[in-house]
Amino acid sequence: MAGRLIAASLGPGDPGLITRRAWQALQGAARWCYPVRRRGGRSHALGIVERAGLAVPEDAVELIFPMTHDTETLARAWARAAQQIVPILQAGRDLLFLVEGDASTFSTFTYLARMVQQLDVSIAVEIIAGVPAYNAAAADGAFPLAETDDTIAIVPAGYGLQELEALLPHFDTLVLMKVKPLLDPLIDWLAAQGLLQEALFVEKAGTPEERIVRDVMSLKGEKVNYLSLMLVRNPNRQRGTMIRGCKQKPAAQPQGEA
Amino acid sequence: MAGRLIAASLGPGDPGLITRRAWQALQGAARWCYPVRRRGGRSHALGIVERAGLAVPEDAVELIFPMTHDTETLARAWARAAQQIVPILQAGRDLLFLVEGDASTFSTFTYLARMVQQLDVSIAVEIIAGVPAYNAAAADGAFPLAETDDTIAIVPAGYGLQELEALLPHFDTLVLMKVKPLLDPLIDWLAAQGLLQEALFVEKAGTPEERIVRDVMSLKGEKVNYLSLMLVRNPNRQRGTMIRGCKQKPAAQPQGEA
Repeated sequence: MAGRLIAASLGPGDPGLITRRAWQALQGAARWCYPVRRRGGRSHALGIVERAGLAVPEDAVELIFPMTHDTETLARAWARAAQQIVPILQAGRDLLFLVEGDASTFSTFTYLARMVQQLDVSIAVEIIAGVPAYNAAAADGAFPLAETDDTIAIVPAGYGLQELEALLPHFDTLVLMKVKPLLDPLIDWLAAQGLLQEALFVEKAGTPEERIVRDVMSLKGEKVNYLSLMLVRNPNRQRGTMIRGCKQKPAAQPQGEA
Repeated sequence: MAGRLIAASLGPGDPGLITRRAWQALQGAARWCYPVRRRGGRSHALGIVERAGLAVPEDAVELIFPMTHDTETLARAWARAAQQIVPILQAGRDLLFLVEGDASTFSTFTYLARMVQQLDVSIAVEIIAGVPAYNAAAADGAFPLAETDDTIAIVPAGYGLQELEALLPHFDTLVLMKVKPLLDPLIDWLAAQGLLQEALFVEKAGTPEERIVRDVMSLKGEKVNYLSLMLVRNPNRQRGTMIRGCKQKPAAQPQGEA
């Protein structure tokens, strides 16, 4: 009987945001594995459990996922990591993959699990959900992500301002990930939209080095960290009519409503 | 010195998804308050801590938020709840507001905190972030919400199919909240888009009664629970060029990129 591959989502960095289930799993019999950028490199995920006061077991397995956008290099790294852990799983031991944030949201775990199941379809995968970084940013910045019936778009800022311009009318909240490469034009765009007062900049959300900036204009020209996001409220969204749940029957629904 | 109003996000229902910080806060000296739909009614949030094995303190305060979309009735309820708790806070005791899911995401807490600070601006508000229901749905259904550079839209389904049709080309993942009122037309729309195999239906995500349905077509004509969502992958999204973070300097960015 093969062991299970279990993703332990640890939240964005604050050990207080580890869930009780992940915490319990960390104290259990499963062997740990964790991602690093290069051999012997620092692991964010491992840093979270260390800050929580846990000792790293000697048999914890380092998996290398290089910092690159080259899809072939990445695919090779995922395949190598899967080949590394499949024998451990096949020997019957559960493996806990330590992951920052939430394992379903912008995480390497998705690729790793896919590769592992390609190698051995009998290996069961389990995921312990966690707190995503932007939820921690919203909490720490007292910035509501969504009120009743609101819409949220979570978009890497790198798709550019034209894309944001197209999305803005549809959303009450934009969560812009990785704003670093276009921070200055983004600030100008927010100013042009009259949204400067509606934006919150958060660097390293949910980590001990978290920085929250309300006066986003003050960031112009600054070199910010790679792990930087912006939350933007759009008070100008025009809402269409809503089809409510409790008062209408499915049979009474029109087909092409707005 | 007034007490603090602290939102304890408890996750979607599984007591294992309570964070360590919220768990610690629940064992602390703060008085509890929790939302109900009507006097003496069942509280989902309270149910989570009860399932976690905690006893409800005798001085826990019930706050009534009626199940209605009438904005005046709701505003009165928020104001009444705020008037109920402000004296407790002014007397110096911390108050823990128990909230399902994440307090920043589709939660009553936003309104309550606003009303409390309108009554007494000196009252400090803190938020402990939590796991949103759709993250639990994704984990339990092994459904990745976002891979690298993906885009996510979180949209109440009630805005209708025309709205979804407009958003689809921009997103890799749609998280459709409250699908009940238009489940049948939504299933037909997914079929027409060739997305039936890319959809996952989850009822009462992250609760003990969670139900996951992969064959969404089988739901046609069924009356599902009010707390039902659908996760939809869109493998057909055409991606624009991305502006990468690590290789370019902010000064080198063009202004209107796609």
